[in-house]
Amino acid sequence: MKKHNFFAGPAILPEEVKKQASEAALDYQGIGLSLMEISHRGKEFVAILEKTEQTVRELLGLSDDYAVLFLTGGASTQFFMTAMNLASDNDTIGFVDTGSWSKKAIKEARNFCQVDVLASSADSNYNYIPKNYSVPDKLKYLHLTSNNTIFGTQTKIWPDSSCPIVCDMSSDIFSRPLPVEKFGLIYAGAQKNVGPAGVTLVIVKKDLVNKSGRNLPTMLNYQTHIDKDSSFNTPPVFPIYVSMLTMQWVLKNGGLQAMKSRNDAKAEVLYNEIDRNGLFKGTTAPEDRSPMNATFVLENPELEEAFLEICTEAGIVGLKGHRSVGGFRASMYNAIELESVQLLVDVMKSFEQKNG
Amino acid sequence: MKKHNFFAGPAILPEEVKKQASEAALDYQGIGLSLMEISHRGKEFVAILEKTEQTVRELLGLSDDYAVLFLTGGASTQFFMTAMNLASDNDTIGFVDTGSWSKKAIKEARNFCQVDVLASSADSNYNYIPKNYSVPDKLKYLHLTSNNTIFGTQTKIWPDSSCPIVCDMSSDIFSRPLPVEKFGLIYAGAQKNVGPAGVTLVIVKKDLVNKSGRNLPTMLNYQTHIDKDSSFNTPPVFPIYVSMLTMQWVLKNGGLQAMKSRNDAKAEVLYNEIDRNGLFKGTTAPEDRSPMNATFVLENPELEEAFLEICTEAGIVGLKGHRSVGGFRASMYNAIELESVQLLVDVMKSFEQKNG
Repeated sequence: MKKHNFFAGPAILPEEVKKQASEAALDYQGIGLSLMEISHRGKEFVAILEKTEQTVRELLGLSDDYAVLFLTGGASTQFFMTAMNLASDNDTIGFVDTGSWSKKAIKEARNFCQVDVLASSADSNYNYIPKNYSVPDKLKYLHLTSNNTIFGTQTKIWPDSSCPIVCDMSSDIFSRPLPVEKFGLIYAGAQKNVGPAGVTLVIVKKDLVNKSGRNLPTMLNYQTHIDKDSSFNTPPVFPIYVSMLTMQWVLKNGGLQAMKSRNDAKAEVLYNEIDRNGLFKGTTAPEDRSPMNATFVLENPELEEAFLEICTEAGIVGLKGHRSVGGFRASMYNAIELESVQLLVDVMKSFEQKNG
Repeated sequence: MKKHNFFAGPAILPEEVKKQASEAALDYQGIGLSLMEISHRGKEFVAILEKTEQTVRELLGLSDDYAVLFLTGGASTQFFMTAMNLASDNDTIGFVDTGSWSKKAIKEARNFCQVDVLASSADSNYNYIPKNYSVPDKLKYLHLTSNNTIFGTQTKIWPDSSCPIVCDMSSDIFSRPLPVEKFGLIYAGAQKNVGPAGVTLVIVKKDLVNKSGRNLPTMLNYQTHIDKDSSFNTPPVFPIYVSMLTMQWVLKNGGLQAMKSRNDAKAEVLYNEIDRNGLFKGTTAPEDRSPMNATFVLENPELEEAFLEICTEAGIVGLKGHRSVGGFRASMYNAIELESVQLLVDVMKSFEQKNG
């Protein structure tokens, strides 16, 4: 039975990517060796790393002012690396607190600089994106979380800011076009729209780096990885390769504008049903709804198990909501097809007929 | 043509591991989803992570006093994480300087504590392992590099030490039995005997952790990963799985004592030929020769290209030496077969006949 993959992350990969990854794990392009057992300094992987970087540059239209790095440690490591590298003890970073990941980023930054939380939606369990806050002058940078996987909200209008924006885009990078010039640094754990778990994408404006005055461990200094093209030490070879394949798939399917159309179409189908179906309700402010992660609950929570059961019978997986919100979360990253979302909607309709 | 893989790292994986990894990349155990696209909190990966830890414990005979962690960032990250976590500013760490990796570990530790380099073989391009040094009392710990991939030396006799030993075993872990109780912490980048690049194994005695008095970033504190069973954030799912397969292969093939016999047999065949063949010479002190990485040069360096060429014709790959030593390096990790080493020896003999 075909599985319809709504996991929040690690998340769905395109079919052709899985096939190519599977081949490379056994024998990379007929060289008689797995991609996992050859030198990262050999011509095969060096070419992969270059192409991965070029694909990121092409998708986002990045200028040479930006470095593209492939690191490890996830967004959780970027929570402190950003502050550690870009700010001094006396600098102030502004934060907009939009959920669990923002909170963690704020906590880690406090070890390295002053923190000013400009706005927060904690008062209503993060079910909206704060707006109409002003960004003070003299912030070193403004930190945002573009998409909140747990709470199902997305920042759709970027704030006016005289300072660079540093943004955790782990769950929506490459899902829509971006005004890149607004950003000083973008980071993303790969395991949603970039590729599999095990690599972290960092895009950083080179002139922001190396100004904290700190004596950093070599591996925690962005400059190390800029100077060594992400190969100061052995990079995560296979996750980078699968990320390259995934980003190439985005490019071949029309790039970021095409992904936005595709993702908006899927989101419209699901959110329309959430609003129409009397059994369900969405948990977030309609204007801030994320096309990546739709969070919704049943008016009668006692039916939850029954609904998950008929989803499972239909081949729908990964729908159980995060404990912070409850109910359901349908994650609809780039690679999921409209057909899968339509199937979920059909199951919701038939559940309504039985239980409405 | 069959390839004979002598790469120094990332390095050879067992055939059956590559097959299983290839299948899992497409469809993990028939669930209709790739292992790379399912939640790291789901039952499939939780079972893998548990089995990976159990395999490490079984191979090394670890007691519950030790935690087994799967992190990222490679040995290069452990160079500072060890000092940062286990020592305070005023503590002194002892080091034995046996090559490039030791030097880097010493450099990174200096940011966090006092360093006492007890012995070094830098004076002769690291072609031997220092011995007969004494380990002062009151060291916080003694740091060793068990096997020096670049220089082809291995620590065969563990020093007497009243303090715990912290050891970088990136290139020889699981290649021989270990007196585990001597070690307070063992770390290893996976990409030699553990699995593919992208995961770092850390084995740490739990009572050594959380005593530095430092306020560490959450991700850099071993206690975080102990408390959260290596799943504080999304772990590198696929590299961990392939590591589990590789370590299971070690277990099924007799464990560490059997690996030692296998590796000693291969090393004997190659080193005997290096010593017998008039064209070649070994670069390291015979008593410190590594069974993992045999470094050797031609008496007449002008023949280097010609030798590499006939190796390539025979399907032998990864033999070019590191620039710090020159000549050749044959890396013979657990998974390489005696047959491949015998072929290399045959090629050396036939090269002697043509050029002797």
